[in-house]
Amino acid sequence: MIKAILFDICGVLHVDNEPVAGAIEAIQLARDEQIVVRFVTNTSRSTSTDMLQSLLQMGFDLSVEEVLTAPGAVKLALQQRNLRPYCLVHEKLRPEFADLDQSSPNAVAIADAAEGFNYANMNRAFQLVMDGAPLLGVGLNRYFRQNEQLQLDAGPFIAALEFACDVEAEILGKPAKAFFQTAVESTGFAAEEVLMIGDDAFADVQGALAADLRGCLVQTGKYTPGDEDKIRHPGAWVLPSVVEAVNQVVKPTYAYSNK
Amino acid sequence: MIKAILFDICGVLHVDNEPVAGAIEAIQLARDEQIVVRFVTNTSRSTSTDMLQSLLQMGFDLSVEEVLTAPGAVKLALQQRNLRPYCLVHEKLRPEFADLDQSSPNAVAIADAAEGFNYANMNRAFQLVMDGAPLLGVGLNRYFRQNEQLQLDAGPFIAALEFACDVEAEILGKPAKAFFQTAVESTGFAAEEVLMIGDDAFADVQGALAADLRGCLVQTGKYTPGDEDKIRHPGAWVLPSVVEAVNQVVKPTYAYSNK
Repeated sequence: MIKAILFDICGVLHVDNEPVAGAIEAIQLARDEQIVVRFVTNTSRSTSTDMLQSLLQMGFDLSVEEVLTAPGAVKLALQQRNLRPYCLVHEKLRPEFADLDQSSPNAVAIADAAEGFNYANMNRAFQLVMDGAPLLGVGLNRYFRQNEQLQLDAGPFIAALEFACDVEAEILGKPAKAFFQTAVESTGFAAEEVLMIGDDAFADVQGALAADLRGCLVQTGKYTPGDEDKIRHPGAWVLPSVVEAVNQVVKPTYAYSNK
Repeated sequence: MIKAILFDICGVLHVDNEPVAGAIEAIQLARDEQIVVRFVTNTSRSTSTDMLQSLLQMGFDLSVEEVLTAPGAVKLALQQRNLRPYCLVHEKLRPEFADLDQSSPNAVAIADAAEGFNYANMNRAFQLVMDGAPLLGVGLNRYFRQNEQLQLDAGPFIAALEFACDVEAEILGKPAKAFFQTAVESTGFAAEEVLMIGDDAFADVQGALAADLRGCLVQTGKYTPGDEDKIRHPGAWVLPSVVEAVNQVVKPTYAYSNK
């Protein structure tokens, strides 16, 4: 019995600046049925405030308290450990880190910097990590779909630094178990009562299942046929979109599974 | 009994634009003792002609026929397979690939592009590989030392694309067995009669040992204490510089080994 849903945002609720057909109504249906909803994203090309704003403009109904972002989790970790980050992040995400001391950095915080991923910035991050700075990243997401094309996300650049320095990054967003646990705790339910709906087989679905949640892969956004085969845990649902996923929660018909 | 020596160039024969002390004389000593010498490099920020030119200017005595480069190996592979590469390479290396058809690319050739490793170029390579283009790389070298600092080499960016696309790059330079075999064949001796001298524990020494050559790690260039512990094969020599390495070949005293 599913009591709460975690929605991935980009690729699940919207693609580019268009809502996925029926997504706005699907969230409303979940709310009407007393399902607790949360929005969990590794997207890191804008602040959570800007992201919320653009979702509201698309017609979605949600509040800032319902949104958990990977950059927010990175920031919290930096604050808790009193670290001064070198922020290899998108220009538009800078405001989110603006109140942190970034002088003489002793940590590297890395998000989807997009054009910020140039050689000079990568080299700077590399030299800091080689000098012992911990490497904190939003997620290992490989790519996302935008303007009909796949675009590199933060994951590959984090992987580059891991390889260069022979270290493992600390991933604070999905698929980190701690990130899913924080989201689950905010719902007040147990992990097995919470469903994660995402278009990323690895970060969303595999990650949720590994953290004892339920997981549903939707075939929108970055989904490419065959992605379901990459989910190593059994029991994932695979459905055309967020609409069918919410319907399946509200009115279970039969089990959709990847295995 | 060692009959031939493969010298890595950057970090072994010179650091920045200065010859390593005694390196010029060490090569001369090897030649005087009838040791066959070859120069094998993954360095890819200039054409082999320019590299030769700058070595001659530093006072080294060598000819173009004695030099084997990773970009040369990549080019040969592209030609043999009739591929049209998208060349993610350094501006100064472009002339080496200029005679290849690079229209409508169906392959990605990647070398140390330095400032060429920007988001747009990485994304372009990524999209081609996702569409099925093979990914050919010079080597998985992580970094090199320049101006007293470690600098990112091609390896991490190749690793980024491998991670993004879930593919394995074809490495044509060191530590590819085929590269070492080509170099060994050019000497006319058997692998176990050939010593590789390098400052990269992985690409030079581990790679050589895995290809049945002898291997010597020198403590110049990018060498950092502890690097010898990364060599998984037993039997590597570890010596202060190319001078002691050549001396050890010419006048063996006792076994230097990492194990």
